[in-house]
Amino acid sequence: MDYTSQAETVVTSDIMTPAVIIDTHTVQKNIDKLQGHCDQHGISLRPHIKTHKLPSMAQRQIKAGAIGITCQKIGEAETMADAGIKDILITYNIIGDEKLHRLAKLAQRCTLSVVADNAYVVDGLAKTFVRADHPLEVLIECDTGANRCGVQSAEEALGLARLIHNASGLTLGGLMTYPPMGDQVRVNNWLKQAKDLLIANGLPCPKISSGGTPNMWRSQEVSVATEHRSGTYIYNDRSLIQAGLCRIEDCALSVRATVISRPTDDRAIIDAGSKMLTSDLLGMEGFGLIKEAPDVKITSLSEEHGILDLSNSKWSPKVGDQIHIIPNHACVVSNMVNHVYLVNDNHIEKTVVSARGLVT
Amino acid sequence: MDYTSQAETVVTSDIMTPAVIIDTHTVQKNIDKLQGHCDQHGISLRPHIKTHKLPSMAQRQIKAGAIGITCQKIGEAETMADAGIKDILITYNIIGDEKLHRLAKLAQRCTLSVVADNAYVVDGLAKTFVRADHPLEVLIECDTGANRCGVQSAEEALGLARLIHNASGLTLGGLMTYPPMGDQVRVNNWLKQAKDLLIANGLPCPKISSGGTPNMWRSQEVSVATEHRSGTYIYNDRSLIQAGLCRIEDCALSVRATVISRPTDDRAIIDAGSKMLTSDLLGMEGFGLIKEAPDVKITSLSEEHGILDLSNSKWSPKVGDQIHIIPNHACVVSNMVNHVYLVNDNHIEKTVVSARGLVT
Repeated sequence: MDYTSQAETVVTSDIMTPAVIIDTHTVQKNIDKLQGHCDQHGISLRPHIKTHKLPSMAQRQIKAGAIGITCQKIGEAETMADAGIKDILITYNIIGDEKLHRLAKLAQRCTLSVVADNAYVVDGLAKTFVRADHPLEVLIECDTGANRCGVQSAEEALGLARLIHNASGLTLGGLMTYPPMGDQVRVNNWLKQAKDLLIANGLPCPKISSGGTPNMWRSQEVSVATEHRSGTYIYNDRSLIQAGLCRIEDCALSVRATVISRPTDDRAIIDAGSKMLTSDLLGMEGFGLIKEAPDVKITSLSEEHGILDLSNSKWSPKVGDQIHIIPNHACVVSNMVNHVYLVNDNHIEKTVVSARGLVT
Repeated sequence: MDYTSQAETVVTSDIMTPAVIIDTHTVQKNIDKLQGHCDQHGISLRPHIKTHKLPSMAQRQIKAGAIGITCQKIGEAETMADAGIKDILITYNIIGDEKLHRLAKLAQRCTLSVVADNAYVVDGLAKTFVRADHPLEVLIECDTGANRCGVQSAEEALGLARLIHNASGLTLGGLMTYPPMGDQVRVNNWLKQAKDLLIANGLPCPKISSGGTPNMWRSQEVSVATEHRSGTYIYNDRSLIQAGLCRIEDCALSVRATVISRPTDDRAIIDAGSKMLTSDLLGMEGFGLIKEAPDVKITSLSEEHGILDLSNSKWSPKVGDQIHIIPNHACVVSNMVNHVYLVNDNHIEKTVVSARGLVT
């Protein structure tokens, strides 16, 4: 199967619904705005491509000034390297012979770095890269309060740093965290303490990578960090509007859907269900924001149907009407479709989402 | 892009996680069991392929005695017709010139029927098929209590039946419903009343199609129905175990995942997140049932990580261990991956999920 990106020019009336529509003017504004913020504060920006999974978007981000990209899966990184992206950080514990073999091949064609939060992962990397031409850069993932992956203390980071530093095929890149939202001071203190401990023990700590779109406008508060990773900022979504981090007009991705049934005065049914909008609620009510009727709630989804409650609205769409929905969570929606439509004023391009579905 | 089904033989150790694993022995048992039930009660079975999106599974269902298949999207139906499936019902209001054009082409190469619940949809179908070689069979979708699509009364069904009956390119197939769960008597009364009204007005009503996997063992209670549609029964899932409709060993689909991090004694992290298991809860707690540790809850998902709470369990997996998860909802999980692995005793086949992502 050919999953490389293909572009094909179409006209608006050709777009069958449901469809993921991406406004490239808004994309560019979002890229430029966060890049400007990071430039102003002297922080390197390393966008996470999980949100778009499109080489053309990664290239826009690099062109605007990003130092490289972040991926979560080797398959995503392979696709981006195929498209000529040169600097890739995979923020994921890589485990298993097959994956390590792919990682070694990938390292031959881009500047690659990965993370580890335990000795098992470091051992696998060390064995794989022992005879490589160049050592693999490894950052230590730290749990600074988000309660996901990561070493639990500066002392634990030190132990792992020694393992990495002593492995001939590896080089110690520093620290990485996916931080909790909000408490930037705590994150900064945690990382500073670990960095100081590494340096006090004669170990290098050149890079400290933090991230998170919800933290993006406060990235400078983690002053010890050298780079910030952010994914969702390129498209934005309803969760970020809700958090006060962007406006409706900053949302570049929307789902175009058609009203296919009006069984009652209070109910409209659209052709976008959980296989398009996903069941992600992110703490909100309803499954997306309808741009044409923000007061109308998408109350439930079945796989291919969305149900709209019109009982508290004067809006009364007819069968055949099209609407546009800002999804709760953009990153999972662009992963649901084989193609997205890139739209600007007078041009529509149908593009394969080349890194979607690459689960390994 | 080539989305036709391809099979490739692999060995177990080649399977990188996360992966969707399908036990074909269990699949066959599930197919045979529901087919046997329907045969015993004289009901035609028309499986919904949304669950598997695989031509090979549709062919197994037909071979076991199914009269045809159900699809929700034209793209699914096209893929199944490509694979030689001859009798397809699309249980969806089809709207828009492009889709109607595809529908007309599809009708030339299989026995096709569709549904409609409003005059706008009937008009589109009537115009499209007015000069077709064969009339298109249209069933009227009825809302028998599930509060999704469907006409609201027998009188409304009669009005739509007249429109269909009077359109030269269409033929009236009868009634269709996606019923509410549980109250089969109400569904039967609703449909019987509508059928009686059609017949009293000189209109045909040869077919009545009901469905739903949660209703499958009680399908005979909708005695007026001529056929039953069911999708999830082929794989089963945690929601059906929870509802008492199947056992763990009847679940044919599982997600194989690897423990990639053990940050604390109470927490394990796996490499399956919401881009694999999806956020579908279907009213349950946790994001799937771990076969190796049914008492352990998958408490939260980020896109590529699943978090396991080990605080109430003696089970303590190591980094690198593999586990198998029965997802809450099988139908949405097989839609997340480009490939699934079909496994029987001594054979593993990697197969493209050829109808996934075909959102139109």
